[in-house]
Amino acid sequence: MRIAIDGMGGDNAPQAVVNGVVQALNEFKDIEFYITGPEDVIKEQLKKENYTGDKITIIDAKEVISTNEHPVMAIRKKKDSSLCKALNLVKEKKCDAVLSAGSTGAFLAGCNFIVGRIKGVKRPALTPIMPGKNAPFMIVDAGANVDCKPEYLVQFAHMGREYYKGVLKVENPSIGLVNIGAEEEKGNELTKNTYQLLKNEEGLNFIGNVEPRDVTSGDTNVLVCDGFVGNTILKMYEGTASTLLNIIKDEILSTGVKAKVGALLLKPVFKSIKKKFDYKEYGGAPFLGVDGICIKAHGSSDGKAFKNAIRQSKQFYDSKVLEKIKEELELKA
Amino acid sequence: MRIAIDGMGGDNAPQAVVNGVVQALNEFKDIEFYITGPEDVIKEQLKKENYTGDKITIIDAKEVISTNEHPVMAIRKKKDSSLCKALNLVKEKKCDAVLSAGSTGAFLAGCNFIVGRIKGVKRPALTPIMPGKNAPFMIVDAGANVDCKPEYLVQFAHMGREYYKGVLKVENPSIGLVNIGAEEEKGNELTKNTYQLLKNEEGLNFIGNVEPRDVTSGDTNVLVCDGFVGNTILKMYEGTASTLLNIIKDEILSTGVKAKVGALLLKPVFKSIKKKFDYKEYGGAPFLGVDGICIKAHGSSDGKAFKNAIRQSKQFYDSKVLEKIKEELELKA
Repeated sequence: MRIAIDGMGGDNAPQAVVNGVVQALNEFKDIEFYITGPEDVIKEQLKKENYTGDKITIIDAKEVISTNEHPVMAIRKKKDSSLCKALNLVKEKKCDAVLSAGSTGAFLAGCNFIVGRIKGVKRPALTPIMPGKNAPFMIVDAGANVDCKPEYLVQFAHMGREYYKGVLKVENPSIGLVNIGAEEEKGNELTKNTYQLLKNEEGLNFIGNVEPRDVTSGDTNVLVCDGFVGNTILKMYEGTASTLLNIIKDEILSTGVKAKVGALLLKPVFKSIKKKFDYKEYGGAPFLGVDGICIKAHGSSDGKAFKNAIRQSKQFYDSKVLEKIKEELELKA
Repeated sequence: MRIAIDGMGGDNAPQAVVNGVVQALNEFKDIEFYITGPEDVIKEQLKKENYTGDKITIIDAKEVISTNEHPVMAIRKKKDSSLCKALNLVKEKKCDAVLSAGSTGAFLAGCNFIVGRIKGVKRPALTPIMPGKNAPFMIVDAGANVDCKPEYLVQFAHMGREYYKGVLKVENPSIGLVNIGAEEEKGNELTKNTYQLLKNEEGLNFIGNVEPRDVTSGDTNVLVCDGFVGNTILKMYEGTASTLLNIIKDEILSTGVKAKVGALLLKPVFKSIKKKFDYKEYGGAPFLGVDGICIKAHGSSDGKAFKNAIRQSKQFYDSKVLEKIKEELELKA
């Protein structure tokens, strides 16, 4: 397998990117890497990592797209950027997958314009995999499409199903429609109309509406919604978890010595919880519906997060999810 | 002040309702109550509470609206229900406020049809007050209007502002637009258009977009959004907090004795957190924009929650928020 890596994407690039690649090379023997970025900068970084093997090719790219730039403009103008060059490697079938921790907007725009959509796909969807209480769950879409039509959400369901089945190895993943009521007739125009389509759609284990209250249990594998709601869920999850852990910390600090002793004893528990909620364990968010394996890693990814996103790309590739999505959606188109 | 109480609304009615009223009578001297419901049932309950004063009037109502009924149908057909009778007391100016813990849908429909909107208000909004890390925050709307237009959200901002200012006593409450990006141009059609209106609206301390990640800090007082997004925020907050506390509990139980000792020492900390997140402390959610003080209490309210919702009705009344909303919105209409 050949993976293209945007060497300059993310808060900790290029150090974390190159480190993640070197970690991955120690773990997976059958991957070749193409790292894009200014040749001297990437070379310097490889030297620091003491890498001397032949499984990394540097693809020189002089420009970098920052998170402050207008995504579409940046993709159109900066043809020599590390992101565009990495995407082109997939477009030209020189690589099987592409990975970036840079600007989400630019990555999505670049996947659409350079890699292109799968025939029949109306809107590709950003689909992070989140830690739930009982199992991980996927949100399709988490922000790529803020205004949606019911037929987009039906495709989200199929793409999410194929990914969850192939990569998370669940035979018949459950599909839920995020809605503010459990009953069929509840919700807004979009969810009411989508419910009717999903109910009659073949090949989906559609379990009905799922209220946001029940999302984090992880009892439903794939949750479909428009990108505005999906992004709200994603960020409420992060925000509430962080608020709550901060409140616990504040309360402990403001109470007497006893509580501090208690906190000390509970340290391993909190550590294990932190690990459970750690995005680094899950890799990145695949952008499903484009004609290639395109994975958006978290902006603040460190080496370990990159390594896990590389593992995820490999699972995506080995399980032939891309081919299955194509079959599924081209058939229906 | 005279308050109408739906004696049969909520999971614990009529016991919790009557108990809450009796608790409130001990705390506030200047309130008279009108409890609606089957006369014998309410009488029986008052007897159990040993109430013998003259500040409670029972208004006989033979029917009860359940949460399973179609809200609009129920309001139209069950004229002799405890909810309809309570709402009519406000409509006929025999009471200054109405309180129910019954079906949210039926309550909202009843407020619209029986109590009626304030002149100039396009859509009334359900506005729960939530505990944030640094301060309580309000969500306008939390589920009454699932499909919104930008001009509704501008009115939500004004109504929320008047309530927060009057009842939560903050001179110039900050108003934020819930959005999936901080920048002005981010979001969906609704938020982009709403931003432009709010930016140019006079008399609002509009601070711009607030990402869902930052909602729970409580740093923004009033958060406006459509009812689908607002309800999602509300339920994600409840769901995530509950999931996280359950995970902490599970982790403690699955670890050794040390962690259990730690948990024991931390008990007061968790108790204080539970109190901080307790909806019972905050009363209910006012339905702003209707021509009366209408408060929806939580379905699982106990006596204490009812007492607090009664206190909230009194603060609403004393602070003349209803009159201020009328002035504000009639002026602009």
